[in-house]
Amino acid sequence: MKLKKEIIKIAKDAKAASGTLELLKTEVKNSILKAMAAAIVKSKVRILKANEKDLRRAKKKKLSPPMIDRLKLTEKRVNAMADSLKAVAKLDDPIGTLEKLVKRPNGLLIGKKRVPIGVIAVIYESRPNVTADCVALCFKSGNSLILRGGSEAINSNIAIFEVLSKVALKRGLPRGAINLIRTTDRKAVDILLRAEAIIDVIIPRGGESLIKEVARKSRIPVIKHYKGVCHVYVDEYAELNMAESISYNAKVQRPGVCNAMETLLVHKDVAARFLPGIADKLIGAGVEIRGCALTRRILKKRNIVAAKEADWNTEYLDLTLSVKVVDSIIEAIRHINKYGTSHSDAIVTENYKHAMEFLDRVDSGAVYVNASTRFTDGYEFGKGAEIGISTDKIHARGPVGLEELTTYKYVIFGNGQIRE
Amino acid sequence: MKLKKEIIKIAKDAKAASGTLELLKTEVKNSILKAMAAAIVKSKVRILKANEKDLRRAKKKKLSPPMIDRLKLTEKRVNAMADSLKAVAKLDDPIGTLEKLVKRPNGLLIGKKRVPIGVIAVIYESRPNVTADCVALCFKSGNSLILRGGSEAINSNIAIFEVLSKVALKRGLPRGAINLIRTTDRKAVDILLRAEAIIDVIIPRGGESLIKEVARKSRIPVIKHYKGVCHVYVDEYAELNMAESISYNAKVQRPGVCNAMETLLVHKDVAARFLPGIADKLIGAGVEIRGCALTRRILKKRNIVAAKEADWNTEYLDLTLSVKVVDSIIEAIRHINKYGTSHSDAIVTENYKHAMEFLDRVDSGAVYVNASTRFTDGYEFGKGAEIGISTDKIHARGPVGLEELTTYKYVIFGNGQIRE
Repeated sequence: MKLKKEIIKIAKDAKAASGTLELLKTEVKNSILKAMAAAIVKSKVRILKANEKDLRRAKKKKLSPPMIDRLKLTEKRVNAMADSLKAVAKLDDPIGTLEKLVKRPNGLLIGKKRVPIGVIAVIYESRPNVTADCVALCFKSGNSLILRGGSEAINSNIAIFEVLSKVALKRGLPRGAINLIRTTDRKAVDILLRAEAIIDVIIPRGGESLIKEVARKSRIPVIKHYKGVCHVYVDEYAELNMAESISYNAKVQRPGVCNAMETLLVHKDVAARFLPGIADKLIGAGVEIRGCALTRRILKKRNIVAAKEADWNTEYLDLTLSVKVVDSIIEAIRHINKYGTSHSDAIVTENYKHAMEFLDRVDSGAVYVNASTRFTDGYEFGKGAEIGISTDKIHARGPVGLEELTTYKYVIFGNGQIRE
Repeated sequence: MKLKKEIIKIAKDAKAASGTLELLKTEVKNSILKAMAAAIVKSKVRILKANEKDLRRAKKKKLSPPMIDRLKLTEKRVNAMADSLKAVAKLDDPIGTLEKLVKRPNGLLIGKKRVPIGVIAVIYESRPNVTADCVALCFKSGNSLILRGGSEAINSNIAIFEVLSKVALKRGLPRGAINLIRTTDRKAVDILLRAEAIIDVIIPRGGESLIKEVARKSRIPVIKHYKGVCHVYVDEYAELNMAESISYNAKVQRPGVCNAMETLLVHKDVAARFLPGIADKLIGAGVEIRGCALTRRILKKRNIVAAKEADWNTEYLDLTLSVKVVDSIIEAIRHINKYGTSHSDAIVTENYKHAMEFLDRVDSGAVYVNASTRFTDGYEFGKGAEIGISTDKIHARGPVGLEELTTYKYVIFGNGQIRE
């Protein structure tokens, strides 16, 4: 009961603050973001000390090395946080523009005004830099923010939050503008997810199980960032050098991220020519290949493991790749729409019709012709920064940047119109 | 178990059909819509007969006269259904356009392609014409549709659906394109609401309790159409003739709809001059006024009932109006944001600053200066038709027309780009 009161109070404060945030001038927001960046750099020692506490506990709890790496802050990583605050200060402010203004026959002037969503709650795991990233993006887009980080990073999160919050208060922002849930009691999340009258949208950032749980329990709209099972399809009309360079890049350049390729699909007519070369390059880079029967036959000297059904929808996030030979572009598209996760998928082809067909029929947030899936991110798409990659279908798909953290309202300018 | 299998089969058929619908040419869609309109007119007798059955049962069950009126079809109402199918055929097709195409420094051409959402389920009550309206809008926007109407209108809905579905099949659409759940078992709705892997969005149309239940149970995003507690605020700088005409129109022209005014707010400096005149006009039209203390004092000869706290968030949908005198525009805005339902709210003023402040600060789907709230609908906004008025904050606010039944995907045209 006490917990519920406390959480609802935070949510209500956030709601109360959101009206003020919406109306802040862009130059005021930018100057606060720059002051926040400076404060982060100045508080480096304090933040790293807090992070040390989290790391000690993590080691005691024997968290896995990748988990500990995600948790760990270094001087460089703290500087990167400050840089990203400054980068967001430089982005265009989406708030307040009027779009699609039309004059109706009765003289009414009707347009869509871009406005903040209102109150955004972000529920996240491990990486403490998410704290600063979310503050930057939500504040610049005029939204109040409620942060709920993972218990493993609680000291780092509190330290970062306090630095940013102090700047915000000093610059006159209402207390509810930026909030951090300090308790690590998991019930706090359940309370947030049921505050549908106060919170406007929930953004979970973390592993699949976190997102699934949030989506299942939430009464508030959730912008979901599920896993990325991304494909590259090498068409029979592909330029094979380009196909090799794109496939290699999509798999190897950074295998641990959601826009890396997990499955390579190859048209049967080019499989025998294409597969041995790319397989040797990938194996040379340490990639384990799991292939369909035909792939294994073509690569038989290389002792390829057989892909199981489960491989086709597995996000390895690692130097592992499933490979399938397909009969046609249609089979490739069907495979992607069946096993993919609506994230990022690419075709390599010189055939115009196939390129357009792939763009038309693949139901993913980002569909590529002749480029690596690795480009799906806010910066590469020209958004400057992102809060994640949506695999949802409504409101926002693909990289969620400042614009996607807004909504609109209709504004209508009349001069006495009444309805007949 | 059998029911679940049956419903999931329908949903999967809908999903399978959605790829085909997305790629239909606009002219093909329009010609099918016109054929549907003709079939409705031709099947008038059959539809009216089925409606007779529903009406007989409704009378036996002693449904209220307004409920029976909503259920009742007449020759004129059947013709109106056909007209609305033809009207949707005339609207611009939003699908397939490329928006915001940008060329990135590395040569990638990135744009947003407008695409259907996928599978839409509409859960609705009583009015059988909703069946035809939803088919028209969802089909034109390239979405598969699953209809689940109220049990009281089941025979009418089946008749209308069969007429439309027969045209669709004859013209070669896949069976899953348009679907009607024929069972009146309420468990069918629960099964739909949990099919989050298949259905992309749920649109409930009906009373508040239906929408609340759907929102609470659904694991699928819901576009909600809650009640409309709409306000007109008469500012101290209002032109009082205009204020009178707008207030009268917003209340009286059609009181039973969601965009009608439920609360009139009047600035204290003009209350004594404005209220007696408008009150007499409203009372003359049969309106019952419930006023705050000051309103009652000003209108003391007219025996005004005292407004209770509950009046401020009641959607009367009737010739009833709550009236409050406020100290300032700020109090008016606070009242609207506290008691309103983010639907439609208007200010009447000749003061530029107040007009802009109202547009900025009122957090509603449609915010008006000097016009009646009654204009919030798809036709008046130039959308041609609508499936409802969203009171949600993300994806769609205000009238939900063809454009709001779409989403986008990023399409990226490359020529071999890889990420460094």
